[in-house]
Amino acid sequence: MERRIEIFDSTLRDGAQAEGIYFSVDDKLNIVKKLDQLGISYIEAGNPGSNPKDLEFFERAKMLELRYAKLVAFGSTRRKNIPVQEDKNCTALINADTDIISIFGKCWDLHVTEVLQTTLEENLSMIYETIDYFVSHGKTVFFDAEHFFDGYKRNAEYAMQALQAAADAGAACLVLCDTNGGCFPHEIAEMTTLVRERFATAVGIHCHNDMGCAVANSIQAIQCGATQVQGTYIGFGERCGNTNLSTVIPALQLKLGHSCIPTDKVKLITHTARYIAEVANYILPGYTPVVGKSAFAHKGGMHVDGVQKLRESFESISPESVGNNRNILLSEVAGRTAVANKLAQIDPTITRESPVTLEVMEALKELEHRGYQFESAQASLEIFLLKKLGMFKPFFELENFRIIGEQSSINKQSSSAMIKICVAGMSEITAAEGDGPVHALDRALRKALEVFYPTLAQTRLIDFKVRVIEQRAATASIVRVLIETTDGISVWTTVGASADIIEASWNALVDSVEYKLLQDSRSGTLKLKGFRLDEI
Amino acid sequence: MERRIEIFDSTLRDGAQAEGIYFSVDDKLNIVKKLDQLGISYIEAGNPGSNPKDLEFFERAKMLELRYAKLVAFGSTRRKNIPVQEDKNCTALINADTDIISIFGKCWDLHVTEVLQTTLEENLSMIYETIDYFVSHGKTVFFDAEHFFDGYKRNAEYAMQALQAAADAGAACLVLCDTNGGCFPHEIAEMTTLVRERFATAVGIHCHNDMGCAVANSIQAIQCGATQVQGTYIGFGERCGNTNLSTVIPALQLKLGHSCIPTDKVKLITHTARYIAEVANYILPGYTPVVGKSAFAHKGGMHVDGVQKLRESFESISPESVGNNRNILLSEVAGRTAVANKLAQIDPTITRESPVTLEVMEALKELEHRGYQFESAQASLEIFLLKKLGMFKPFFELENFRIIGEQSSINKQSSSAMIKICVAGMSEITAAEGDGPVHALDRALRKALEVFYPTLAQTRLIDFKVRVIEQRAATASIVRVLIETTDGISVWTTVGASADIIEASWNALVDSVEYKLLQDSRSGTLKLKGFRLDEI
Repeated sequence: MERRIEIFDSTLRDGAQAEGIYFSVDDKLNIVKKLDQLGISYIEAGNPGSNPKDLEFFERAKMLELRYAKLVAFGSTRRKNIPVQEDKNCTALINADTDIISIFGKCWDLHVTEVLQTTLEENLSMIYETIDYFVSHGKTVFFDAEHFFDGYKRNAEYAMQALQAAADAGAACLVLCDTNGGCFPHEIAEMTTLVRERFATAVGIHCHNDMGCAVANSIQAIQCGATQVQGTYIGFGERCGNTNLSTVIPALQLKLGHSCIPTDKVKLITHTARYIAEVANYILPGYTPVVGKSAFAHKGGMHVDGVQKLRESFESISPESVGNNRNILLSEVAGRTAVANKLAQIDPTITRESPVTLEVMEALKELEHRGYQFESAQASLEIFLLKKLGMFKPFFELENFRIIGEQSSINKQSSSAMIKICVAGMSEITAAEGDGPVHALDRALRKALEVFYPTLAQTRLIDFKVRVIEQRAATASIVRVLIETTDGISVWTTVGASADIIEASWNALVDSVEYKLLQDSRSGTLKLKGFRLDEI
Repeated sequence: MERRIEIFDSTLRDGAQAEGIYFSVDDKLNIVKKLDQLGISYIEAGNPGSNPKDLEFFERAKMLELRYAKLVAFGSTRRKNIPVQEDKNCTALINADTDIISIFGKCWDLHVTEVLQTTLEENLSMIYETIDYFVSHGKTVFFDAEHFFDGYKRNAEYAMQALQAAADAGAACLVLCDTNGGCFPHEIAEMTTLVRERFATAVGIHCHNDMGCAVANSIQAIQCGATQVQGTYIGFGERCGNTNLSTVIPALQLKLGHSCIPTDKVKLITHTARYIAEVANYILPGYTPVVGKSAFAHKGGMHVDGVQKLRESFESISPESVGNNRNILLSEVAGRTAVANKLAQIDPTITRESPVTLEVMEALKELEHRGYQFESAQASLEIFLLKKLGMFKPFFELENFRIIGEQSSINKQSSSAMIKICVAGMSEITAAEGDGPVHALDRALRKALEVFYPTLAQTRLIDFKVRVIEQRAATASIVRVLIETTDGISVWTTVGASADIIEASWNALVDSVEYKLLQDSRSGTLKLKGFRLDEI
């Protein structure tokens, strides 16, 4: 049966508790806009009581015009033994001026006595009075039943009494929380069903991933009648993170027939994940379900063969449906056929049995051994294959470069690079400064080449990644540099590897500019100042 | 009820199909030994039919003396329309000389007709004859029922017939595979139960993580009577990976009371994960359940407070039980109390209300903004706090350094560094070469300082990590450098951040040597050549 499921995103609140995650107020506003565009129902954006920066956020958020999402302010029940009106965290929640407030309260008796250090009765009053206070101020209140499942296992009746207090006070949703992330689907199923039987109030689910079950537990709760899923968009949160919404949404909507976001927004799922990762300075692992760059990558020979015959043979959903891409990898395991297929794209006479196929496989293996990896650097791969086929003519030659970095007790570090290159028998020497040696070298190379190839002025680096791939010898390790470049229309990635970060960067930079010039030359738009192309 | 669950690790076979993963034969042998030490039951180590390197592996593996684990060779059913004796992949499996063979066969009718392109009857014969062949050669055969769940959804009877063919031929275990990773726990529960009711043969489970449910699905199958879990040790595999065994083992053993590995080996779970990550050149994300460095990290103020009062308040299992550590993070969110606690470790008179607490909080925030992150760089944090308290006296001063990197069409890239420092009024100028500018600078700095501080000769860098944290401006981005150093006894981590990788590295290098000298000075073992310490 298709049901409408509310998606509640806490990237900006629970997600901000992850190790290494930090959001500025501007970051938060940008993420809210992006989640709204995706059609998320609720965005929990901060705790105005505990954090002055969150107060500023809610003030500025009033200006946002949101189409789909409602903002939620988060806080706790009142402190023990004081009237709710005198709890300044509660008044801060009112001042945040959201229609919806999320209030967490204790459901595990042990937490009440040992952590809050109050009585079981007082905790029930804290839940009831806090929710009643906000409801009487016209707010919609979601009750986050903290540690509900762990509490239920230890003292079932008390956990139910906590929910009862929230329901009696007028909570709009009882959100069952697996706060420690230690529950399994069969437990979630049993307890969610019991809550559904006892209460008329809507039920939500909030899971953590400490046992790797957050997504499955959330789906299980939905199957048992919950109608709201809480999580963070790409899963980061305290410890091992929260339910990953970028997995749960397509699972519910594409696999189980529920409705979470508008149908025409599903294809934005991957883009939204990558955007949030970028704002959060978070490296989204390639293997992340649905949205990772390897989520639809096929490497094993039989898988590559199967997926080419029949998409669904090795894909649970189609990459296009969620805005991701299929990626057929070239590697040792993919084997000779895959290498031959790549080569045949350049020269259709090449087959699996051609001697050059084996030769290229061997050369690829050797480069992999030296730290190269072409899986995500298709532009470097293409140049490499052209070279192996004797079909690549370099667009310039390096005479030499020299990089100088200086620092003294008086002056800040400075970097400069001097370079001499040669194009069609004419040489150019120039120099540039930069923030760091690679930056200086990049600038100098472009400056020298633009004298000959003016279209290079359209290109710029948009990403520069360094990975140390053999860490045992520390600074003498092999480093792999991946460079992403754009000319405003297309984007390409190149790779270099070496024990020396400068050399690795240089190799990737050279591929980056040569790839652009190669594309220009193929499309007939290559310009070489002062020459006709057929002269060189 | 406690049951004995067999753990079947496929890191070296299915894991090797992950994007970016490559194992040498030595890597494989090392990982086998490590998994055996953990008490894993079965190690699937390769496909001798499809990969000559795997043949070499199985040849060399005969020399291994394994205590707990049995090696498994993996392959497919015979090819269509030939006798099994003439299929060279099948004879290669015999020659691998393992007691156990894992054979995968098709259970989804669509795969049989569209991918294998044969008849449904022939596929059943392929399953039966292949297993029968190996059983008659004295092998124990596990049948990997590829796409069992997807096949069952489309043609239940055919999927069951495939299992029947395997059971009739004498398979020791029917391993139900969610090959595309698109199933959910309620589906796994239903179908596993049906299989258990129909067959007397043992049942196993093999899941993929495309919908984020691999771990939960595996646990669900165990709850429904399966007795073998297949997965890869840290979860990597084709696309989004396989069931993560480093999560499943503690879940089954510590949370659900089953027995998977010897009790005294559970504390090796984290170490084994980090070892395999290192051999695989795989960055184990901090938030990985159980074994990640953030798996027991607490950042939110209430969580830090709770876990300090009562461990289980925010931890589902104890970090000690699996050989991991609790980590209380210092950050904006952790708040003033946490900062005050850190300061009080240095000066016990400092409280939450001391002016210096606020000042330090502000300064930390400013540094975080500039790209610093102290969560994993406790040595730099300590030096920073001492400086803020006016309790740090630098061990040397930099006069200047200069780095030169050169490359020409004739010569390989070379890097050298010149440095001048000053200790107690005496200066030292020296130079060194290195693989790359940072390596050269590190060597030059140590060379200059060892003239004064001979104990520095005991220290060496063991890890050097670079992260680009603002990638928009490419090479002009901020880079954060983390350096791990050891003196053979302890290990410490320092951090530097800057738009310039040289400057960032320099800051981390300086903290690294100063931290060593600080420890020596505290323990009274600091030696300064030619001076008595009280003279400086």
